[in-house]
Amino acid sequence: MAVFNRQMDLMQQARASSTFNPTKLTVIIYDNEATVSARRAAFHRVEDALGLLDNMKLPHVYSGLDREGLYLEGVRRARVITNDMITHGHSHFQWLNERYQICNSSPFGMNFLMFRRTIELQGTAEQRRYWLQEIDQMRINGAYAQTELGHGTFVRGIETTATFDVDTDTFTIHCPTPTSVKYWPGGLGFSCSHAIVAARLITHGKDHGVHMFIVQIRSLEDFAPVHGVELGDLGMKMAYNGTCNGYARFNYLRVPRSSLLAAHAQVSRDGTYCQAQAKVGTLPLSKRVYSTMLDTRRNIVRCVAFGLAQAATITARYSIVREQGRLMFSDAAEEETAIIKFKSQHYRLLSLIAQSYAILFAAKDFDFRYDQLVREQENDDHARLPFMHALSTGLKAWATTIASAGATEARKMCGGHGFVALSGLPEIEGSVSATATFEGENYVMWQQLVVYLFKQVRASCAGQNVDAEVEDYIGGVRSYLSDGASPSRIQSCDKKTLFDGSTLVLIYKKRSQRALAAAYASYRDMCNRSSAAEAWNACMMTSLAAGQAFVEYIVLESFMKRTSPSATRDAPVSQALSHLFSLFALITITSPTPSFAAGSFLEHGLLTRDELNEIRVHINELLASLLPNIAALTDAWDFTDSSLCSALGCKDGNVYERLLSWTRQLPANSGRAVEKAWEASEGIEEFFKASRL
Amino acid sequence: MAVFNRQMDLMQQARASSTFNPTKLTVIIYDNEATVSARRAAFHRVEDALGLLDNMKLPHVYSGLDREGLYLEGVRRARVITNDMITHGHSHFQWLNERYQICNSSPFGMNFLMFRRTIELQGTAEQRRYWLQEIDQMRINGAYAQTELGHGTFVRGIETTATFDVDTDTFTIHCPTPTSVKYWPGGLGFSCSHAIVAARLITHGKDHGVHMFIVQIRSLEDFAPVHGVELGDLGMKMAYNGTCNGYARFNYLRVPRSSLLAAHAQVSRDGTYCQAQAKVGTLPLSKRVYSTMLDTRRNIVRCVAFGLAQAATITARYSIVREQGRLMFSDAAEEETAIIKFKSQHYRLLSLIAQSYAILFAAKDFDFRYDQLVREQENDDHARLPFMHALSTGLKAWATTIASAGATEARKMCGGHGFVALSGLPEIEGSVSATATFEGENYVMWQQLVVYLFKQVRASCAGQNVDAEVEDYIGGVRSYLSDGASPSRIQSCDKKTLFDGSTLVLIYKKRSQRALAAAYASYRDMCNRSSAAEAWNACMMTSLAAGQAFVEYIVLESFMKRTSPSATRDAPVSQALSHLFSLFALITITSPTPSFAAGSFLEHGLLTRDELNEIRVHINELLASLLPNIAALTDAWDFTDSSLCSALGCKDGNVYERLLSWTRQLPANSGRAVEKAWEASEGIEEFFKASRL
Repeated sequence: MAVFNRQMDLMQQARASSTFNPTKLTVIIYDNEATVSARRAAFHRVEDALGLLDNMKLPHVYSGLDREGLYLEGVRRARVITNDMITHGHSHFQWLNERYQICNSSPFGMNFLMFRRTIELQGTAEQRRYWLQEIDQMRINGAYAQTELGHGTFVRGIETTATFDVDTDTFTIHCPTPTSVKYWPGGLGFSCSHAIVAARLITHGKDHGVHMFIVQIRSLEDFAPVHGVELGDLGMKMAYNGTCNGYARFNYLRVPRSSLLAAHAQVSRDGTYCQAQAKVGTLPLSKRVYSTMLDTRRNIVRCVAFGLAQAATITARYSIVREQGRLMFSDAAEEETAIIKFKSQHYRLLSLIAQSYAILFAAKDFDFRYDQLVREQENDDHARLPFMHALSTGLKAWATTIASAGATEARKMCGGHGFVALSGLPEIEGSVSATATFEGENYVMWQQLVVYLFKQVRASCAGQNVDAEVEDYIGGVRSYLSDGASPSRIQSCDKKTLFDGSTLVLIYKKRSQRALAAAYASYRDMCNRSSAAEAWNACMMTSLAAGQAFVEYIVLESFMKRTSPSATRDAPVSQALSHLFSLFALITITSPTPSFAAGSFLEHGLLTRDELNEIRVHINELLASLLPNIAALTDAWDFTDSSLCSALGCKDGNVYERLLSWTRQLPANSGRAVEKAWEASEGIEEFFKASRL
Repeated sequence: MAVFNRQMDLMQQARASSTFNPTKLTVIIYDNEATVSARRAAFHRVEDALGLLDNMKLPHVYSGLDREGLYLEGVRRARVITNDMITHGHSHFQWLNERYQICNSSPFGMNFLMFRRTIELQGTAEQRRYWLQEIDQMRINGAYAQTELGHGTFVRGIETTATFDVDTDTFTIHCPTPTSVKYWPGGLGFSCSHAIVAARLITHGKDHGVHMFIVQIRSLEDFAPVHGVELGDLGMKMAYNGTCNGYARFNYLRVPRSSLLAAHAQVSRDGTYCQAQAKVGTLPLSKRVYSTMLDTRRNIVRCVAFGLAQAATITARYSIVREQGRLMFSDAAEEETAIIKFKSQHYRLLSLIAQSYAILFAAKDFDFRYDQLVREQENDDHARLPFMHALSTGLKAWATTIASAGATEARKMCGGHGFVALSGLPEIEGSVSATATFEGENYVMWQQLVVYLFKQVRASCAGQNVDAEVEDYIGGVRSYLSDGASPSRIQSCDKKTLFDGSTLVLIYKKRSQRALAAAYASYRDMCNRSSAAEAWNACMMTSLAAGQAFVEYIVLESFMKRTSPSATRDAPVSQALSHLFSLFALITITSPTPSFAAGSFLEHGLLTRDELNEIRVHINELLASLLPNIAALTDAWDFTDSSLCSALGCKDGNVYERLLSWTRQLPANSGRAVEKAWEASEGIEEFFKASRL
């Protein structure tokens, strides 16, 4: 144990200043006390098994590994958490692993997430009976091979073929072009024995479009690729190096007819293709696919809240103990100041903390709606599915954009030390950043939300039914469209009311309604002069900004709900969260999320210049009141030192001794790097370069 | 050579649509034709020597190397470029290496940049005579060891001591605490034989503050660390892994008295300390240090323009050949569309291209002013130094913020493929991002600019002299302060005038003047109620936003100057650059750089809502007119395929075949990763985890 030092003292002081008990907030974050305890126990077992409990010891993942070493370490960790989940019968690492990375960053992560689920959804009863058991017993590990080198989200573009041959009663899976090589699927490179392969089904020369096939890709004896498949890894990535995102090139691989997942389409022995909307349970396939995507997206939203919170926690702890420089114009005799006290750091840090809670509460609120949806769908009521689908796309795009930018900001706030792998921040930044481009690229996501909103507006204008969830909201949009009026300013300018939660939510609502009305009006006008597709493209940037404003309104509303004393059951926690809520609302007004309509809080006369100035003053007050709670607000996430994997972010605040200790343990420092560079030369001058200038 | 394919055809078409000759723009970027030719020849020689001319061959740096391998590859490359510069007597790789990374990313990069320069500046004539020759002959390689584990930009906080011992006539260099260990200096880990060490000079028990010492740290015989110094590398970083940023822990290392760089302070044989403002050349030390910092910063600004342009080039080429999906509402029968035609991609890409030129031209304009300053300083006229220093801090902060965000955006625009190292984008993103936190963290930089501007405003209000460069500008600020008026709206609303370059520059000027006046007024008011330091801290976010608005005004003015036909001497180039200039100006209005006053174009009534709508329409027109020039605007930077080091960004557009080829060549794919993971287990179930659920 380190001798108690200055940094540890600063950390302890920061905790002592808290106005609430962070454990109460931990229970809110993880829903109940039982989960908090069970998770703690699971983390302890896993970290013990992995040899990660001594936080002065360099984590193996930072030992400067090559591609293969990083992968093997990924396998080692994934085995331990999988084992723990099975042995102790829990699912704490199902979505977020022991480092709070999304499960697709694990070599076994796609097995349940996509592989099993696809079979469940699209397999016949017989197929499900056989395969699900194989998966659940972990006798096989599956990948989901849809994306190709030249084809991403646009499924219809997929080129890989599965051609039925009547003579042999087999499909031949083949990649006819470089662009048709499967590229990116998680676990495909080294780890998976099987894969769901998306391919165009061809019988008797006719292309029936993309279908799913279950294909063995590696021998279960020696794990070599089966004949007819070339498999490999994509090499280093910004993060996710513990798994082997890979490629598969199928070269006339023959698979039995039973490989086709045949719940909804069959090929008979004579090659006849037939499509049957056989129901699995009560839902038709299309709706079940939608529901699966919903489930994935809501989990991504929740996961990135934890990713951003991890980055904010490391940066908060470092900012509390890092003393560096003095305020401008301060007395030359003054001591150096902890950087958290510089307004820029203080402001940026609390912005990130507020955003992490905003994402978390938005996810919780969405989960609540989702559970309701599932119950309705069990009764064959799918009315709310379109709204929920649209909202999930917008939330995914918004949350991953915010979290990704926030993780980068957090890393920059740690200066040079943040740039070093040992800080843990580059890995978190990379992992969070990936979510902005996977499982639906964000600009595709935004478009899906706005198309939904436009359809609702059009329906409303045509006097047709509008989805219940947005009826009131769309009504407001239509009134702006019909009278062309700017939104009436929020009634009162009186300070108390301006900063009320409900006033803030109303400001956000009116702002987004006006933005949506303006975007829809532009699009509609453009439609008179060009095709709908051209009009859509011409107005896209304005439309996407309106989608973003809509999501920000929903997020703010969710945040407010969760801060009330009735929701938290603890007055001091409620007070801190309310301050955080107000801060989030106000900084998003003064420093809007970048978009094509960043001025939308102002340009429609929603706020006056005086109100803006009041807002800036109030932000400063909120920052001051939240400063004593920074340690508590980040401690509440209950991250273990090992999960943060950061020399800068351990709970004790002992930043410098740990950073130095980890650095000294780096294998390169006891290796032969210098000698090798030196030996390759003939002498000192040659080492540096060669001879005379 | 690859067979001509679809992607190569799309690339060729994109080039054919250009309205100007990109070579003309290349000459503008590199100043003259001779430089363009000489640079091309140098790149060819170096890439030939490094075995990088075959762009279907996997670059060694992507072969999944461990920490040591990445460093050795860095040494290999650095030797080749250093050799080429010496053999062929040029300096093309002095600031930007063969991958357009800043020279401090090389293991020999600090030798000239900081080590030599410090000796030049602070050494006596004798010291200079001896050391500069050693450096120029490359007999030694030096680091600049100032930063400590606990101390960054705040030099006065440095703890390492150099205590003079009269008996032995030596200094003892020592790190008394963990926080005093030197941490981060480039090349310090493995590559440097010597270092400039910043340490507190102590004689006869008295601390004389931080001084510079030249210290040998490794043996020139076997390159082992000398006794009394522990040296090591910091491990993996987000980028810069070709060099060994390192640490040095001095443990009572004895060095001769002559180690003190003694041009400005000496210690005599009896330990007497004396400070003498001995002039080196005509400039006093403080002014020379300022000038050195200026020189470093202006080079960083120029360097990040190239970094952002590299990212934009890769993304442009990928967007031209990547066909993915169709526009919303388009006919189901339509073919997939090149993603560059989606407005979101089109808009984001041209924003980045415009920003890269904005940074480049701002750097060129600053260089022009800098050359003038150098001439004035040779005549002992330092009047413009404060202004130039302030402007350099603001430009550095602005350019590195924009470039860093832009490189991230470019990577995200390539979706999953951008996340893979082979795209080249993660390395560019990491390298550019480092500039936001090194050589003056950006929030420290902004503050220095604003302090300067505040001082000028105060002088103006007190009727004192204002620096000539800002006299007119500050006059405008003062008038807002005195009459409290909002800036008169730009006179004409007539469309033609609104989009004139001079009108746009005027809008930027007035916006920044108003923001500065408001920030200064807040600060001044706060000073009446609290100390200057507290007032500064309270108002900081508003003040920094004003600084940012000032820089954006200067940048826009510089951009305009460089687009005129008289500047480019080519009408088609001028036209394309003018469109780019307008686009840059207008998107910064509709989508302002994030700051605490992102609404500052709107809140002071500078633009009406109708004008904003006109601006949005005009942006669409500009995007349409620039679309055919995207290939030409990026080709003009003249990046070699090898310098981009990107499977997605080669000039021929042959994206998929190259990505697949490089992937197949990855050593991990012919290695034993799978077998190792398998062997560590007892069977298939154990490989995945262990038995039953």
